[in-house]
Amino acid sequence: MQTIRVDTPSARYEVYAGSGLLATLAPRIERAGIIFGGRLPRRVFVLTSPEIWALWGETFSQSFAQSPIALFLPSGEKHKTLASVEKLARQMIVAGADRGSLLIAFGGGIVGDVGGFLAAIFMRGIPYVQVPTTFLAQVDSSVGGKTGVNLPEGKNLVGSFHHPLAVFADIGVLGTLSGRELRAGLMESVKAGIIRDRALVRFMEENFEAILARDPKALEKVIAASIRMKAGVVNRDERESGLRMILNFGHTLGHAIEQVTRYKVLLHGEAVGWGMVAALHIAHLRGTITASQADRLENLIHLYGPLPALKLNAAKLVAATGADKKNIGGVRRFVLPVGIGDAGVVEDVSANELLDAAKYMLAQTAPDRAPNRTVERKAR
Amino acid sequence: MQTIRVDTPSARYEVYAGSGLLATLAPRIERAGIIFGGRLPRRVFVLTSPEIWALWGETFSQSFAQSPIALFLPSGEKHKTLASVEKLARQMIVAGADRGSLLIAFGGGIVGDVGGFLAAIFMRGIPYVQVPTTFLAQVDSSVGGKTGVNLPEGKNLVGSFHHPLAVFADIGVLGTLSGRELRAGLMESVKAGIIRDRALVRFMEENFEAILARDPKALEKVIAASIRMKAGVVNRDERESGLRMILNFGHTLGHAIEQVTRYKVLLHGEAVGWGMVAALHIAHLRGTITASQADRLENLIHLYGPLPALKLNAAKLVAATGADKKNIGGVRRFVLPVGIGDAGVVEDVSANELLDAAKYMLAQTAPDRAPNRTVERKAR
Repeated sequence: MQTIRVDTPSARYEVYAGSGLLATLAPRIERAGIIFGGRLPRRVFVLTSPEIWALWGETFSQSFAQSPIALFLPSGEKHKTLASVEKLARQMIVAGADRGSLLIAFGGGIVGDVGGFLAAIFMRGIPYVQVPTTFLAQVDSSVGGKTGVNLPEGKNLVGSFHHPLAVFADIGVLGTLSGRELRAGLMESVKAGIIRDRALVRFMEENFEAILARDPKALEKVIAASIRMKAGVVNRDERESGLRMILNFGHTLGHAIEQVTRYKVLLHGEAVGWGMVAALHIAHLRGTITASQADRLENLIHLYGPLPALKLNAAKLVAATGADKKNIGGVRRFVLPVGIGDAGVVEDVSANELLDAAKYMLAQTAPDRAPNRTVERKAR
Repeated sequence: MQTIRVDTPSARYEVYAGSGLLATLAPRIERAGIIFGGRLPRRVFVLTSPEIWALWGETFSQSFAQSPIALFLPSGEKHKTLASVEKLARQMIVAGADRGSLLIAFGGGIVGDVGGFLAAIFMRGIPYVQVPTTFLAQVDSSVGGKTGVNLPEGKNLVGSFHHPLAVFADIGVLGTLSGRELRAGLMESVKAGIIRDRALVRFMEENFEAILARDPKALEKVIAASIRMKAGVVNRDERESGLRMILNFGHTLGHAIEQVTRYKVLLHGEAVGWGMVAALHIAHLRGTITASQADRLENLIHLYGPLPALKLNAAKLVAATGADKKNIGGVRRFVLPVGIGDAGVVEDVSANELLDAAKYMLAQTAPDRAPNRTVERKAR
């Protein structure tokens, strides 16, 4: 097991990544949950999905003297709404929840986002613990304190910053994840390596077979490195005023793809994968990375592919980036890698550059291109 | 004009109380809104009620170079819901709101609570300003950072702590308030005096005619003293772990009355008025105040009456106190005045004492009792 400390102005907690955590959760929470004086509160709630609970509910509950009260959120982005949050809050009231109750979010990113937000606003805030069950949720959404739900107008448009008491990322749970979900999640680790961790890039290049075969030691290493990268950034910039912006690498066009396809075609990690391909193109043209670095990083992305093919209009994608809520006051901030393992934010990426990048990216998505192929650029 | 500083671990801002603030709002916000670098952001939204906007919209807008975008919340507690918040958030998105937008909550307590919560969760938090238009909102709900909405199961069950950039309490706006609303609001000032400000008790005893006639100087003094009391408490105990609990004086049975009457019969201040009558009875029986102090304080409450008569069952009221979310883990905390101008919290008030108090209070509510009458207790 590896332990990663998250330490921001408003919260301090640990993320634990390793095997066998789920079966020993209760004593671990008691040790982590300093606000309870070493004991679980009278009422513990667990928000989960019916599928996860069917697979892992028994293991989850076995370390609790009294079984947590299970609340269910049906799977799918369409349930990530204020209406769901209201329904869950009402169920908690009926079951006797008070301001001292604990909520455990046990599931993928949607359960984590909804559960965190529910905890943030229930009686103006109760403590919660994250137990993420997908690779993506383990490396990304369970660190940073971002919680929230969607509006019909866009994703994550309402929410809170609310940090968990602790995060337990159990590698064993990933065994029931589909291959596609695992690969999509690994895009976040690819991103982590590109923007902040040269050694992770190399490890993921050299060990892709073990990683994709879910070798526990290899997965633990990738997950811990990815969490450590994000925690390091969040530690220094809790509210996304500057440094934290680099976590959005690949997200400008990634979000545009998700919006244009109405979040129905690609997994988030897959959209970010394509968004990184586009961003690498701009970085190469601007000279913040060399042609061979761009090729190496794009190959790394495809190593954890194949990313689903896209048939989209480049101009529409660029138009969709304008609605991105990450653009403050209309200025278009864009994350560019600088060499391998570093990145910066620029504010002068033009619509034309985005259009070029979108076209380049869409050319790579042609379904006749072989998966896991090698790209090679000409130097500028 | 009086200026009261609110200074908590998570926020620092000023509350301004005086005449003529509304017509000069824009430059005042620019001076207070340090995060904007001295300028209003591109998009300013104002959440208000149709009634308030019809009366005061023109005055409100006149100091803005560009009129704020008005959002409307219909009057009434039944609109204080997550559904309203979602609708308003969607309207903001459609109108181009981003993370740098400013929201002004311009109305009574419900507009303040909903507006503050909307600002708390819109894109995970945007800045907001409170411009309360009722006496109650000016002295109570605009200080302390509590925001939120109701669930069918109870009031304020979901919400956030989110402090405004500044609060502007314009005395002039109180001119259009109904007499009943003014008197109900003044119960909060009576409460402020009883628990924390002996001089305010005396001022309200000696100047009740000027106060009820809405003399601007008298009102400014009462409002500023009440805000100062609350700010002083909140400054020292932001999250209601201890000291802040005393602000709940009169609320145990006050909330019970509101619940049993489904929030339809009494204004909040009126319910708190009756709740204070009940709490004074317990304080007298326990000896934390003398009989003559109890009489004096109960008379002060009736001076700002008449409180509406109640026909309720005492046992039902006591049962309703058990559901109060302020009771942590089933312990019944109760605020008792200690002399005049001080108060403490006890945890051992029994159901029998509450029943006695409820019966005493209900006996005072008989409709044949004259308004503004003088009570007199026998010493124990």
